[in-house]
Amino acid sequence: MTDDSLPPPVTASRTVFFVSDGTGITAETFGHAVLSQFDLRFRQIRLPFVDSIEKAHDAARRINESFALHGQRPIVFSTLVKHDLSSVIRSANGMHMDLFQTFVAPLEQELDVKSTHTIGRIHNAVDTEEYKNRIEAINFSLAHDDGQSHKNLAEADVILVGVSRSGKTPTSLYLAMQYGLKAANYPLIPDDFERGKLPSSLPPFKAKLFGLTITPERLSQIRNERRAGSKYASLENCRYEVNEAEHLMRREGIRWLSSTTKSIEEIATTILQEIKPDRREY
Amino acid sequence: MTDDSLPPPVTASRTVFFVSDGTGITAETFGHAVLSQFDLRFRQIRLPFVDSIEKAHDAARRINESFALHGQRPIVFSTLVKHDLSSVIRSANGMHMDLFQTFVAPLEQELDVKSTHTIGRIHNAVDTEEYKNRIEAINFSLAHDDGQSHKNLAEADVILVGVSRSGKTPTSLYLAMQYGLKAANYPLIPDDFERGKLPSSLPPFKAKLFGLTITPERLSQIRNERRAGSKYASLENCRYEVNEAEHLMRREGIRWLSSTTKSIEEIATTILQEIKPDRREY
Repeated sequence: MTDDSLPPPVTASRTVFFVSDGTGITAETFGHAVLSQFDLRFRQIRLPFVDSIEKAHDAARRINESFALHGQRPIVFSTLVKHDLSSVIRSANGMHMDLFQTFVAPLEQELDVKSTHTIGRIHNAVDTEEYKNRIEAINFSLAHDDGQSHKNLAEADVILVGVSRSGKTPTSLYLAMQYGLKAANYPLIPDDFERGKLPSSLPPFKAKLFGLTITPERLSQIRNERRAGSKYASLENCRYEVNEAEHLMRREGIRWLSSTTKSIEEIATTILQEIKPDRREY
Repeated sequence: MTDDSLPPPVTASRTVFFVSDGTGITAETFGHAVLSQFDLRFRQIRLPFVDSIEKAHDAARRINESFALHGQRPIVFSTLVKHDLSSVIRSANGMHMDLFQTFVAPLEQELDVKSTHTIGRIHNAVDTEEYKNRIEAINFSLAHDDGQSHKNLAEADVILVGVSRSGKTPTSLYLAMQYGLKAANYPLIPDDFERGKLPSSLPPFKAKLFGLTITPERLSQIRNERRAGSKYASLENCRYEVNEAEHLMRREGIRWLSSTTKSIEEIATTILQEIKPDRREY
């Protein structure tokens, strides 16, 4: 079968379990990535905090029940670091995809170090510097949403600018939540366009500025969902604002990208590459 | 070797690459989960948007350069759906852990369906209902942060309550960002304790209320980071507020959990289990 031959139409859906000794976020991310390669619908069940033999037997029982009910073995994505818990799950009648069992053993061999088999290492480190920085970044980004505060901009890792509803707020919060970056954001508004200048507190921080733009058509559509029929949402006004904002950013030498067809994850990743290459590169 | 024998002390760090045809978020989540099982430090390099043969050769070159520089083959976590891109990366001198190559083929066999090999399926679906709901949920949660708005509470999926600085804001935003849940939050303040009642707009939505509490010691520590030496941050005041808030929640029959040693991911997962079991279960 080649890439051109389409998969058969969706008929039945298979049941998928995400089993984890922690939150299950990794198991879901891992499973969703793999499942996204199939044009099928899946019945999804998440079983987090499976951190004892009793809970593992309970999870195995649910997998077996699903098999009995639907007559097809469920797909089981699991991230269980303890062998005994993992064995119980694997004894259930399912198709097992186990992240740790698959990848940890070869890595132990490669690194010549035994793994710790410690549960909850991934999202559990509340007392680390990294976690504190993330919470601080979320608070910073919230306090500096939509130009609300001019304080401590020197602390910002990035300052997003763009017209209202170009995607600045969710992107700022995502950068804070996912990467612990202090992300402020400022709207570019008609006042700025008339003056032909950036909001007055921004010029000292030009190196941190990053612009978001958007097509006038998409902007008008988004604004109409909020304020249908307003001048603010009109295509004419959106054209004016986007045009002026792009002029301003070009004149000020601000890097920018278009958020029109990008998800917040894609926007954030691109900004990260542009603004902070040093954090994650050698 | 048993769990009791500790791994050797950290000496050198190995280089790790996360290679993806998209944002690299899945590759990092997958890699961090596996690496979290080792008490070692790793030099981390992220190579997102590797979606052409040229970029794949570029990435392979960087992996080979790292090997030449450090004298150890790097660990390469990759999520590349196209075989040709994946082959180029695997030709580089590294230890390869490839999520799709490992798990997609067995799943094709199990489901008796070919995978689509489509790049960017995971975080790229800007035009889906699910993505729109997420953005709407983020906007809702922001507008309803810290009791700022009493409007449209009927639309909320969950309303968090708790004393100031008990973790409500980051948890609400995480629930919105990760799960697309509309999460409002209301502070419980001394006025409420004196009246002995919940904030007046909340009683109609009791089924959606979820409480966060925290130990007075931890709360005092967090508040002192913001307002050192204030009455607000004093241990005595924190004891009073936490005690009153727990009384109030108990009297009103509100489920709650302690955020003291839990990450926002763990808090959010627990709330999800309590509040919305129907969304993700059968």
